[in-house]
Amino acid sequence: MGKTFAEKVLGKAAGYAVKAGDVVTVEPHFCMSHDNAAPIARTFKKIGVPKVWKPDHIVFILDHAIPAPTDEHAQNHKEIREFSAAQGIKHFYDVTSKGGVCHQKMCEEGFALPGLVMIGSDSHTCTYGAYGAFSTGIGRSEMAAAWATGKIWFRVPESIKITLTGSFQKGVSAKDLILKIIGDIKADGADYMSVEFHGPGIHAMSLAERMTLCNMGIEMGAKNAVCPPDDKVLADIQGKEKTKDWEALWADDDAAYAKELAYDLGTLVPCVAKPHTVDNYASIDEVKDTPIHQAFLGSCTNARIEDLRLAAAILKGKQVAVRTIVIPASWVVYRQAMKEGLIDVFLDAGCVLANPGCGPCMGNHEGILAPGEACISTANRNFKGRMGNKESFIYLASPMTVAASALTGKISDPREVL
Amino acid sequence: MGKTFAEKVLGKAAGYAVKAGDVVTVEPHFCMSHDNAAPIARTFKKIGVPKVWKPDHIVFILDHAIPAPTDEHAQNHKEIREFSAAQGIKHFYDVTSKGGVCHQKMCEEGFALPGLVMIGSDSHTCTYGAYGAFSTGIGRSEMAAAWATGKIWFRVPESIKITLTGSFQKGVSAKDLILKIIGDIKADGADYMSVEFHGPGIHAMSLAERMTLCNMGIEMGAKNAVCPPDDKVLADIQGKEKTKDWEALWADDDAAYAKELAYDLGTLVPCVAKPHTVDNYASIDEVKDTPIHQAFLGSCTNARIEDLRLAAAILKGKQVAVRTIVIPASWVVYRQAMKEGLIDVFLDAGCVLANPGCGPCMGNHEGILAPGEACISTANRNFKGRMGNKESFIYLASPMTVAASALTGKISDPREVL
Repeated sequence: MGKTFAEKVLGKAAGYAVKAGDVVTVEPHFCMSHDNAAPIARTFKKIGVPKVWKPDHIVFILDHAIPAPTDEHAQNHKEIREFSAAQGIKHFYDVTSKGGVCHQKMCEEGFALPGLVMIGSDSHTCTYGAYGAFSTGIGRSEMAAAWATGKIWFRVPESIKITLTGSFQKGVSAKDLILKIIGDIKADGADYMSVEFHGPGIHAMSLAERMTLCNMGIEMGAKNAVCPPDDKVLADIQGKEKTKDWEALWADDDAAYAKELAYDLGTLVPCVAKPHTVDNYASIDEVKDTPIHQAFLGSCTNARIEDLRLAAAILKGKQVAVRTIVIPASWVVYRQAMKEGLIDVFLDAGCVLANPGCGPCMGNHEGILAPGEACISTANRNFKGRMGNKESFIYLASPMTVAASALTGKISDPREVL
Repeated sequence: MGKTFAEKVLGKAAGYAVKAGDVVTVEPHFCMSHDNAAPIARTFKKIGVPKVWKPDHIVFILDHAIPAPTDEHAQNHKEIREFSAAQGIKHFYDVTSKGGVCHQKMCEEGFALPGLVMIGSDSHTCTYGAYGAFSTGIGRSEMAAAWATGKIWFRVPESIKITLTGSFQKGVSAKDLILKIIGDIKADGADYMSVEFHGPGIHAMSLAERMTLCNMGIEMGAKNAVCPPDDKVLADIQGKEKTKDWEALWADDDAAYAKELAYDLGTLVPCVAKPHTVDNYASIDEVKDTPIHQAFLGSCTNARIEDLRLAAAILKGKQVAVRTIVIPASWVVYRQAMKEGLIDVFLDAGCVLANPGCGPCMGNHEGILAPGEACISTANRNFKGRMGNKESFIYLASPMTVAASALTGKISDPREVL
């Protein structure tokens, strides 16, 4: 019997062969925290260990509330700066033009690498599976302990195999696929499992698309989500690897899976996740013409240059009908978009750009909804109150669907404007 | 005896000759409100008049907290949208790429015109004096009454004449001049007076520099501040006048002044206003090397293209030492800065850009200070807690001084890096 990706990567990290259900203690290659490094640092100090295990393996990226929108955020940022300086943590992305959303930066900067074990104090740390890493979100206390000990324990997860064939029709993208998958298997359908994407469909996708898929693994309960470390991954990481300790690992063909699913990408249609759960799938036809008050093109899920290009192609030469907030995933993406003329397209269309970071995704600032308002968003969560108001409504969709809807002020089918 | 500017403009508006000390009731040409249009609209509704006096003479420009950083701001914006729609207020600048800081937009869009009487529910409405308007900030209840009645009463102010000669030395700008003036005559030195700028020094200044001067009139207690409507003004407004009801009015040579001051611009040096009052003047030598934690280049005072050019010239090819937040005064300015390569200069230097609006100026979002932190800022107020934390410190300075200080992390003399 062959091994799954999770069994291989955790076995390598543990130093002995493991199988699903085993409990292993391993040393993570990188520990990522964003603005919540501040409360984690407070917990760390209570542990009583004077120095973190390996400062070079800890990464801090401020993104949740930058520049600080409140006293409390400012205080947190200050504590993180002081802690980084005191501990010699050099991988610190402060409020500068080197910043962006943490998950985007981890991939852009060469932290996300095949075969690594990566942990982050954020649910969407599973994003780095796009690069073939075993990568998962953990709690704050657990992260404080990892800084102190350099160790983290896992039960080796069972795995789900999702095989992708065919190719997307015009107007359909990776976001529509992952919303469909989550709608099918539901928010708890992959609880504590390792979700592996297989098949020609995944190899055909860009890294940006794979990041969208893996990013939302947690929305079906997955411990991690992962794509094969193929030539596209190897080409992307070349020259920017933050450690040499990586290895392209992948599941054996005869590995054992708890569940197997298959999707023909050509059968998918544009869709949304309706309020207030991510698994509340609706095809575009079911929700078409629902009025919206705000459109948000941003977040770690869908604000890469590829996403901005798709949205800009729809907005070009037209005017948005509702306020539309565009937040590129990083300043690298922002500058690339400037160079390609996409920022001009967005501004010509009436959109507002904000500084790279999480923006309004989790209701911290830069686009909070008023009671009764609905937003169509490229982000990953539509929970009640997620964007700051419990009486508001969030529809999750692809960049193309968000752009098409921004133009009409109603949920709209991108296939009709492409 | 000749007449002052205030006597002329208020006499014209009243329809009869007036002198300082008279009380007049006039119809304002434009009534400007920003995000506080929401509480004003609530007061207006209590008055019981169903419709505003003239919807085309009311201007709403959202800038104080855009995109909305909190529920409360989102609710305010929503109410303003509903009120504008119900009242037919077409001069409404929402959260779009047509927006920016209200005072910048009023000048950019051709509302600010010579000889008009303009009121705004914001202290820095005095900015439009740069275009030769009689322009002043009023309270919220007063604004609600103005919407209902189309009338506003004033005591015709006494006037102060400030005569400017000579020209700025390298590294010195209009901001240094106005901080010096306020330092000299103090925060209450022009209480309820009309401040007139005269002399070759004012004619030599750009409209951007004049806006900086007039913007800060309120910081010495002035009712309004005003510059002569010379050829530069007439050239700037050409083709964009939002009303034909303007007239280039100016004080007579033999007008009577309560006070006369004169400044030779060539004698001025770079300076700051130290915490926590605007009249707490210090020359750059007195404060040099004071550590700072944040630099802010923005606000209605100093974020025009001319300001960005001055700052960029200092930052070009260098790296900032502290977090530096750049917020152009409007999207028009932002796009011009993109075109000129200034956005690239700021980003290359490590600065972060945020969406045009007031940003952190009054502590709403986008750069709140932590306790104990100091900020050097191009804005107009350094009151305790102004940027969101009562234990923080704000030094007001010119764009050049802010840029030079950003590079070192200490208050620095721009003359040394020019």
